[in-house]
Amino acid sequence: MSDRETGRLLGVGVGPGDPELVTLKALRAIEEADVVAHFARQGSASHARTIVAPHLPPGIEELALKYPVTTEIPKDKPAYRDAIAKFYDEAAATIARHLDEDRTVAVLAEGDPLFYGSYMHLHVRLSARYPTEIIAGVSGMAGCWAEAATPIAQGDDVFTVLPATLPSDELERRLADSNAAVVMKLGRHLPKVRKALAKTGQLARAIYVERGTMAGATMMRLAEKKDDRAPYFAIVLVPGWETRGDAPRSKTP
Amino acid sequence: MSDRETGRLLGVGVGPGDPELVTLKALRAIEEADVVAHFARQGSASHARTIVAPHLPPGIEELALKYPVTTEIPKDKPAYRDAIAKFYDEAAATIARHLDEDRTVAVLAEGDPLFYGSYMHLHVRLSARYPTEIIAGVSGMAGCWAEAATPIAQGDDVFTVLPATLPSDELERRLADSNAAVVMKLGRHLPKVRKALAKTGQLARAIYVERGTMAGATMMRLAEKKDDRAPYFAIVLVPGWETRGDAPRSKTP
Repeated sequence: MSDRETGRLLGVGVGPGDPELVTLKALRAIEEADVVAHFARQGSASHARTIVAPHLPPGIEELALKYPVTTEIPKDKPAYRDAIAKFYDEAAATIARHLDEDRTVAVLAEGDPLFYGSYMHLHVRLSARYPTEIIAGVSGMAGCWAEAATPIAQGDDVFTVLPATLPSDELERRLADSNAAVVMKLGRHLPKVRKALAKTGQLARAIYVERGTMAGATMMRLAEKKDDRAPYFAIVLVPGWETRGDAPRSKTP
Repeated sequence: MSDRETGRLLGVGVGPGDPELVTLKALRAIEEADVVAHFARQGSASHARTIVAPHLPPGIEELALKYPVTTEIPKDKPAYRDAIAKFYDEAAATIARHLDEDRTVAVLAEGDPLFYGSYMHLHVRLSARYPTEIIAGVSGMAGCWAEAATPIAQGDDVFTVLPATLPSDELERRLADSNAAVVMKLGRHLPKVRKALAKTGQLARAIYVERGTMAGATMMRLAEKKDDRAPYFAIVLVPGWETRGDAPRSKTP
């Protein structure tokens, strides 16, 4: 079909988990796509696909990209990096074949496509060669602070996103140096994060969130969480504005 | 009507400006509301209202909240703080009267309601007294990095949001200490921000964005911007991941 448009790569943010937190633009992208691609762990359904499942056109071609390894090999080992790089190279090559045939490929991304997510590994491999469009999404952390109904940052607040993998002195230093923060990727680092927040005097206002806006969401003041168990994707919110003079009062979860 | 639900306060994120970056949940909130409230400057239309204008139910009651002052009084003056506090107190009282009559009030917020925005001033005054629900939105900055098609943060990146109002040595210190950053509220602070980025070696990769995903958006490498003019809401993106070894290549705007 000579009048057909060139195939486009679409990085489509589908939001934090609540199927209603999908944008009109994401739905249009899914309708226009020839192929819908999504990431998942081996043996698991793709979370991003689940979020938009009711909106997938019947019979749409799907491309399930299954991570070769997740936690079986430590992340700092060359074997992990090699396996992951090969996986992204092959996924990009598969998508490139569709794009070369002028087919538009929508890659679903939980949250926002360019903010801590797997889509970016395809983007850096393909976007210089193919027309690419990004559809911004509601981030996972915004879903969490909405669920907690807690203002996170306001006015001249310095807001920081910190991975829980940082060494404890680094975590402490950076928490003390921020008005508001989110600590991501808690997993086995929860005790270290709790200790750092206690040292910086922020434990009382820290909020622990598990599974954000998804079914089975858990949310509590971190100070009230008695165990040290946390899934990898759990996060801690450290609201900024509440602690300042111009924020008279706020709801607590 | 005795079976009527209690009035609820809804903080509704309507996204960064593109009318298609509104979520299904925001549209449902607007449909369910008895009153739709929105902030605007004196003599201007509300941006948030403009974004969802095609979706406002015909005849819906609207409450236009007009800021009493914007740039006429310097922000650090008591007269400014007093005028603004009185404005928010009165706006909250007006909304409370609707809520007391069991009417649901949707307050529209550009971007996300709990991330640097005016809605929070109503939230802290009302949410302890009335059932409140927050509908997360796509943030203004996510709209900007989507438009630039530039991965902002990945993996273990430390990501920081900085107000351009910070003193220059603070800006430099914090930019040097972050893998990825967004500098907000540029306005007259652009020359200072440019200098800080040059000193930290980040100027070459910094991207200047004006009016995000709205009509008339402007985007360029900051190094290529020749003048010192920037509106208050312009921002600078400092992408993180691109500078690290595992990000092979990326598109430039």
